[in-house]
Amino acid sequence: MSLFEDTIKSIEGRDEVWREKARARLEQLTMPHWALGRLMDLALDLAGMTRSLRPPVERKAVVVMAGDHGVVAEGVSRFPQEVTPQMVCNFVNGGAGINALARQVGAQVVVVDMGVAHDISAMVEGGLVIDKKIGPGTANMAEGPAMSREQAIAAIEAGIEVAQGMADGVDLFGTGDMGIGNTTPSTAIVAALTGTPVAEVTGRGTGLDDDGFNHKIAVIEKALALNKPDPLDGLDVLAKVGGFEIGGIAGLILGAAARRKPIMVDGFISTAGALIACSLAPACKDYIIAAHRSVEQGHRIMHEHLGCEPLLDLNMRLGEGTGGALAMNVVEAARRVLTEVATFEEAAVSEAE
Amino acid sequence: MSLFEDTIKSIEGRDEVWREKARARLEQLTMPHWALGRLMDLALDLAGMTRSLRPPVERKAVVVMAGDHGVVAEGVSRFPQEVTPQMVCNFVNGGAGINALARQVGAQVVVVDMGVAHDISAMVEGGLVIDKKIGPGTANMAEGPAMSREQAIAAIEAGIEVAQGMADGVDLFGTGDMGIGNTTPSTAIVAALTGTPVAEVTGRGTGLDDDGFNHKIAVIEKALALNKPDPLDGLDVLAKVGGFEIGGIAGLILGAAARRKPIMVDGFISTAGALIACSLAPACKDYIIAAHRSVEQGHRIMHEHLGCEPLLDLNMRLGEGTGGALAMNVVEAARRVLTEVATFEEAAVSEAE
Repeated sequence: MSLFEDTIKSIEGRDEVWREKARARLEQLTMPHWALGRLMDLALDLAGMTRSLRPPVERKAVVVMAGDHGVVAEGVSRFPQEVTPQMVCNFVNGGAGINALARQVGAQVVVVDMGVAHDISAMVEGGLVIDKKIGPGTANMAEGPAMSREQAIAAIEAGIEVAQGMADGVDLFGTGDMGIGNTTPSTAIVAALTGTPVAEVTGRGTGLDDDGFNHKIAVIEKALALNKPDPLDGLDVLAKVGGFEIGGIAGLILGAAARRKPIMVDGFISTAGALIACSLAPACKDYIIAAHRSVEQGHRIMHEHLGCEPLLDLNMRLGEGTGGALAMNVVEAARRVLTEVATFEEAAVSEAE
Repeated sequence: MSLFEDTIKSIEGRDEVWREKARARLEQLTMPHWALGRLMDLALDLAGMTRSLRPPVERKAVVVMAGDHGVVAEGVSRFPQEVTPQMVCNFVNGGAGINALARQVGAQVVVVDMGVAHDISAMVEGGLVIDKKIGPGTANMAEGPAMSREQAIAAIEAGIEVAQGMADGVDLFGTGDMGIGNTTPSTAIVAALTGTPVAEVTGRGTGLDDDGFNHKIAVIEKALALNKPDPLDGLDVLAKVGGFEIGGIAGLILGAAARRKPIMVDGFISTAGALIACSLAPACKDYIIAAHRSVEQGHRIMHEHLGCEPLLDLNMRLGEGTGGALAMNVVEAARRVLTEVATFEEAAVSEAE
């Protein structure tokens, strides 16, 4: 069996017995019943994922998958494509948003070249970027498939390999992305997999005006009409209208789930990766923690389709893994509620009548 | 002048010049414009409060004000009054929800006896609790004023003294509360100060059933009709239908604002304290960071009245300062966005066309 098939077959959902053990403790904590709300819901999930009443979350890493997109030739982004390698350099130098937020929560930032159009081998040779380049950017999905089916599998396997390589030293993963133009394939993915009209899931990306916004919708509609991705086949959707970094994110999620590690899924692009991963292996959904709700239109539809309620809603729309890093604090808090709060009996506090 | 009057007169709002300096930097960061949303809004506020582009937030403290309420004689809570001192003991021993969440963010927990009905002098003598006891619980507001006007001033001054005593060693304050029955006076305060019907702002506290809920509404309506608090006089509202710990929280907010320190305001009870503080010194609102939206009915009305949008919404309703402690992570993140993210020029990243 291939790494791809092997990983998908190895994913088991969370363990309900451990969730119930956690529930039994949480219901006895010195507070009114379930008074810490979603922290307690999350503590149940962590116990179920990790099969532990002391779910490890200390060692944290955000994996930023970078890739370029042929569809930028259609003029769907306000930023030039050279910004992708420039931002990779910024990540490596510690000066980007994700670096600041990862430092706040004590997470490492790992950058992967999944398909940057520029030659960034100097950073790879310096050990600063992991090289999993599938190609120098995808093809233009408005003119044909973004990539071949073989490339789609290779992108997912690259993400699985990154997760496997890190899993022994990481308790809590976060997904991140960088790729000029990548809200366009992400929008195409959510439209294809959920059957929602493109106009309802298209947002303004890094800041399009009305004309740019309408043009973006038209480009996505054209790509879907031309490529006809099969909504029942996540691999076909990834190949026809996806991106290399989106495939890497899907693989990272699958790899983390196979190792029973919780994974924070960040914003619109990361959640497109999660849609692909869940279409290939529905059980991986049990390891996904939806970090935040992005400003980007369509993110809400993605969460509804996955059945996830995001933790934060702070008008963020940067990507890079920033929402995932910030929400790792909430995961740490949930773990502490489960492990550090005394029960009524332990603290000799009277219960409700 | 008294400490009370002196403090109120000394509060100046945030500095718009420093906010604009922060805005100028944030608009140049290597990301699409304002892509970190509320983290950037918060960074502006922190700069304006602290008059700094490196707003200090490192040294953090949650002050838990504890007090009892005569109105529990009316049967408005499911928990017995003895739980107040038991939970104070739990705080001191590090086993409560606030201890776990304060540890997660690296905040100290300071407990103040504002008016616990039980003798907890052993904990005071051990240096574990600050003694500012105004009395052994308030009087029953369903039969007369909860406290005298002099006691209301003393409670607020106690909070100011705590803030002043800590301010040299604390950058970021958080409010916390403990007091069985204290959603009842908090509901009376929001109803009195905003003119909202009691039924619209009453919640189920620690878990009342329908009969208990309707009874609670009736008790609050009776207390308001009997005491007729003056909605234009926060001190009168505190005295007639408030609580000692709520006065302490109001004082803590005033004291922090006088020292230009940001203060996280937690849930329903803490925000009742903020309403009192803002009615006495509207400028103190500039130092308040609304931490989260509680499940408790009426919290939304409080935030609307204050003009604050809370940072988190996680179905929490514990109090103790838990929401404030959790949201301190967001404040730390906001500071890091302002101080650690490179500008387009610094990182040599191309800007949008």
